[in-house]
Amino acid sequence: MTSGKINVTVENIFPLIKKFLYSDHEIFLRELVSNATDATLKLKHLCSIGETNVEFGNPKIEVRIDKENKKLHIIDQGLGMTADEVEKYINQVAFSGAEEFLEKYKDSAKDSGIIGHFGLGFYSAFMVADKVEIITKSYKDEPAVHWTCDGSPEFTLEKADKTDRGTEIILNIAEDSLEFLEEYKINELLTKYNKFMPVPIKFGTKTEGEGDDKVEVDNIINNPNPAWTKQPSELTDEDYKKFYHELYPMQFEEPLFNIHLNVDYPFNLTGILYFPKLSADLQLQKDKIQLYQNQVFVTDNVEGIVPEFLTMLKGVIDSPDIPLNVSRSYLQADGNVKKISNYITRKVADKLKSLFNENREDFEQKWNDIKMVLEYGMLSEPKFYEKAGSFVLYPTTDDKFYTLEELKEALKDKQTDKDGKLVVLYTSNKEAQHSYIEQAKAKGYEVVLLDSPIVSHLIQKLEMDNENLTFARVDADFIDNLIKKDDNTISKLSEEEQTKLKETLENIVPKQTYTIQTEALDSNAAPFMITQPEFMRRMKEMQAAGGGNMFGNFPEMYNLVVNTNSELATSILQTEGEKQTALINQALDLAKLSQGLLKGEALTAFIKRNFENIK
Amino acid sequence: MTSGKINVTVENIFPLIKKFLYSDHEIFLRELVSNATDATLKLKHLCSIGETNVEFGNPKIEVRIDKENKKLHIIDQGLGMTADEVEKYINQVAFSGAEEFLEKYKDSAKDSGIIGHFGLGFYSAFMVADKVEIITKSYKDEPAVHWTCDGSPEFTLEKADKTDRGTEIILNIAEDSLEFLEEYKINELLTKYNKFMPVPIKFGTKTEGEGDDKVEVDNIINNPNPAWTKQPSELTDEDYKKFYHELYPMQFEEPLFNIHLNVDYPFNLTGILYFPKLSADLQLQKDKIQLYQNQVFVTDNVEGIVPEFLTMLKGVIDSPDIPLNVSRSYLQADGNVKKISNYITRKVADKLKSLFNENREDFEQKWNDIKMVLEYGMLSEPKFYEKAGSFVLYPTTDDKFYTLEELKEALKDKQTDKDGKLVVLYTSNKEAQHSYIEQAKAKGYEVVLLDSPIVSHLIQKLEMDNENLTFARVDADFIDNLIKKDDNTISKLSEEEQTKLKETLENIVPKQTYTIQTEALDSNAAPFMITQPEFMRRMKEMQAAGGGNMFGNFPEMYNLVVNTNSELATSILQTEGEKQTALINQALDLAKLSQGLLKGEALTAFIKRNFENIK
Repeated sequence: MTSGKINVTVENIFPLIKKFLYSDHEIFLRELVSNATDATLKLKHLCSIGETNVEFGNPKIEVRIDKENKKLHIIDQGLGMTADEVEKYINQVAFSGAEEFLEKYKDSAKDSGIIGHFGLGFYSAFMVADKVEIITKSYKDEPAVHWTCDGSPEFTLEKADKTDRGTEIILNIAEDSLEFLEEYKINELLTKYNKFMPVPIKFGTKTEGEGDDKVEVDNIINNPNPAWTKQPSELTDEDYKKFYHELYPMQFEEPLFNIHLNVDYPFNLTGILYFPKLSADLQLQKDKIQLYQNQVFVTDNVEGIVPEFLTMLKGVIDSPDIPLNVSRSYLQADGNVKKISNYITRKVADKLKSLFNENREDFEQKWNDIKMVLEYGMLSEPKFYEKAGSFVLYPTTDDKFYTLEELKEALKDKQTDKDGKLVVLYTSNKEAQHSYIEQAKAKGYEVVLLDSPIVSHLIQKLEMDNENLTFARVDADFIDNLIKKDDNTISKLSEEEQTKLKETLENIVPKQTYTIQTEALDSNAAPFMITQPEFMRRMKEMQAAGGGNMFGNFPEMYNLVVNTNSELATSILQTEGEKQTALINQALDLAKLSQGLLKGEALTAFIKRNFENIK
Repeated sequence: MTSGKINVTVENIFPLIKKFLYSDHEIFLRELVSNATDATLKLKHLCSIGETNVEFGNPKIEVRIDKENKKLHIIDQGLGMTADEVEKYINQVAFSGAEEFLEKYKDSAKDSGIIGHFGLGFYSAFMVADKVEIITKSYKDEPAVHWTCDGSPEFTLEKADKTDRGTEIILNIAEDSLEFLEEYKINELLTKYNKFMPVPIKFGTKTEGEGDDKVEVDNIINNPNPAWTKQPSELTDEDYKKFYHELYPMQFEEPLFNIHLNVDYPFNLTGILYFPKLSADLQLQKDKIQLYQNQVFVTDNVEGIVPEFLTMLKGVIDSPDIPLNVSRSYLQADGNVKKISNYITRKVADKLKSLFNENREDFEQKWNDIKMVLEYGMLSEPKFYEKAGSFVLYPTTDDKFYTLEELKEALKDKQTDKDGKLVVLYTSNKEAQHSYIEQAKAKGYEVVLLDSPIVSHLIQKLEMDNENLTFARVDADFIDNLIKKDDNTISKLSEEEQTKLKETLENIVPKQTYTIQTEALDSNAAPFMITQPEFMRRMKEMQAAGGGNMFGNFPEMYNLVVNTNSELATSILQTEGEKQTALINQALDLAKLSQGLLKGEALTAFIKRNFENIK
């Protein structure tokens, strides 16, 4: 038996690092600016704990394009490197200075904001540069050095005459990456990745003031102290709104309200989430929640980290504890990530509850804009569902807003049927179901407006979890059948007449679509009315909202409720032949109209006939 | 000045390779099965060129779970490795045996299907295993060896007693990866990544036959010769359909037709695309086009590779020439990828043209299912637009199908207006615009059915590119105004009466919504008609379909066309007071009904009133 050590040669691995370390070449700038930030924050930390006497000052990072010479410079005023440190940190791939620093100063440096982790970021420079140079002078009293590498693993190191502290990285941009010499491109990248990094970043200059007061000043592209890094107590409503527009400069609507996240145990996470006014075209939503790590932008794909029902929100999340470079399926299984997702759910629920308690009227006004998110949350997150009872609202067509418990209390006297079931009448569309709503209101009933696409799933769940509670859409039957009482109604027609009426109708009304249901209603109620039973309609809706197609192919079936106490019923029995047929068809057409079922050729014929009647 | 070589130490890089080489841990199985496939194909190649005399036989790859000992075995019958080769290919990270092999046999091995490239795949085993073992016996007459590594860079190598040719990899699965000892999981991964790989893969056994004929046979999970690797001439329609269901086992619908892709210059690409029957819920589309590389599944995200308008298709694409590990923005800039995308567009256009030419009737029947894709293609790909003229169809409400040129020819006699413009009348909804369609047909005009959501963009483009061609929806004005001829119509009413009628109507009909337009129409035409001018409606639709909101907030405005030659016009002038108001309101309601504008309370009132009239 022999043994040995697996061998990694730089010739083999270097091309891979250059080509495949990051899937996106533009990442190089984020990495180099992060390194510059770390160099500055490390020095700050050393100053703060008295390890050095140098003047920290107001260091900034500068990014400069030299288009003529095809160079891009990234210059910091951080702690710099000695020749020995270049040997150690640069010439050894994947030896992270940041990890070593955090290890060495582990007690004091925990909150220093240092970003680096794997010590590979620097090499991303070779994704876009033929040759990379480092000119660096340490804060220690040692000479500056100049390191050069042309992307082969060979490097040179020589003395340099740099006199000010810090590191300058010079990228000699490769021919296939010349776009990174364009001002618009670098500006775009800095704005995308570094907009909220903690050290000021200068990119060019701009003029300020007017006339004689006009001065050239540094163009600082970042806000080093974004709102989410502050305590909620330091921030006003205005500050939160201002930050919203800083985050989404193209967004003109104001957010409805915000939720400030701030936790440091068992994981570290800060952030601000905003409830936006939902626009009609959800799919066109471009301003997504942004994920940061120590103020460095990582992604706007927060799937798996933020519970799905909250991905319609906007805002930022910043956490060093979210593994970034692994797959979504891995994220979903990661315990830490699950905890973060649960924490966000809980925090959102708590905030909604306190908004509801503090200013219910305001909450009610915002209901229409937030209900979709909340209803979806109730269905998808059991923990949210548990908490939702105390703030989720059920608005009526008369603009009253009830919680579920309040709704039960308000309806129980009038809307409990003879079997002790509390029947909640609802409409999915005030306009389309207007005549049915009017009939319910005429009885003194209240009608709840539930118009989200997932509402059939939601009421199914509410019925399961609340004994003796049932939901019925106003057009599911005639109103006395929806909430059955013990009243007996008396029919003006004899049994025999009723049978004859039914037979007459069945000869004219298409059987495959309508089932005739004769009922002795109030003589003022509509003579004909079309209803669709709750169960089948709801199953169809649930499947339309949630995929699947078991009920989708069932034909549409309706009941034609005929009021035997109406004058029309009597008229039908008293006429015959063409006149009777005309009477029934006109009444059927009117009933179809109120269910939105009279269309196309039938509607054209109806209109023509009725124009003729008034000419 | 000093110089030197950048140093990569295995201690630094190994943890990174283990953790970050692949974002998805499950990839390990794909990599190991690919290596086993390569070992088999290399031996096959050597046999075929007479480099060795060993019997190739019918080698397979076996994947075996040993749950008790927490081990996963991947066993091949390929060329195996000698002790020296293990030293060379395994102990040196990123030294690819496949590249070396292809280099050595470059002329003959081009089409051997060998997959490996970077020589890193093997190390992905450490993403899920604590300890990895290799037991391997070369096809050469040398003793077998047993290599072991516990994930530290230390390995041991000793003699083994394996007597049959090939390599066995044994993964001692780590505690955090025990899911990879579950049969369902391994089955899922093999099905996802290896379903069409070129060497048979055995995973367990299954029983075949009944009763006494029952036998235990190998459970082969893959089809080593998928349809796309064959020549179109070898395949029947049935074969294509069979392969479709092999690709999407949960899909029960038949595809409409397929397009076999096959190109080897200037890039290498094979594949089969299918036009599916589009279901109503496009967003729920789960069966996407799958991308393979040498029969190994890579991804079902083909964005950037397949032109966007074709991402609704299904099928496979296999190409070794698509860079896989780089970002989408990079892909879009890659010249090769752009060429692939253009090739696919051209191929699809050619196929559509030949389908149209070969069996027009069949093509017409399929039109409804394919039009969305084609219309979107015309708008988004200029190269497709150029070719589309010869097969894109414009169906009429009478189920005739015209190409654009045929349509112009068919309509030109009747539908050219007095200014020489050819007016194409269209409807977006046969049901909702039924009465308007009837009016057009009564004049002998044809009405084209254009009901895709992007149709307003499409007709805008067609109008721009075709001089003297204009589109008008049937309800954009009364029919004689849509296609203006020189005919003079005579009004039964005097100027004075017309003015009085207009004033009377303006007092009753809401001004902010309806503009009164008196016209001397045929006395049989509808007395009242509501129209909406083409321009504003189309602008609104274009913005609804393509984002933006400039016109979206304009109020809905209509014209109320009143036929001064109708008996109703005369009646209105002859009545007064309540009776006149009732007459006008009933007529307005009927006109609103035919534009779908009578809703809610107004509809309820209309129905109630009309029920009273027939009681």
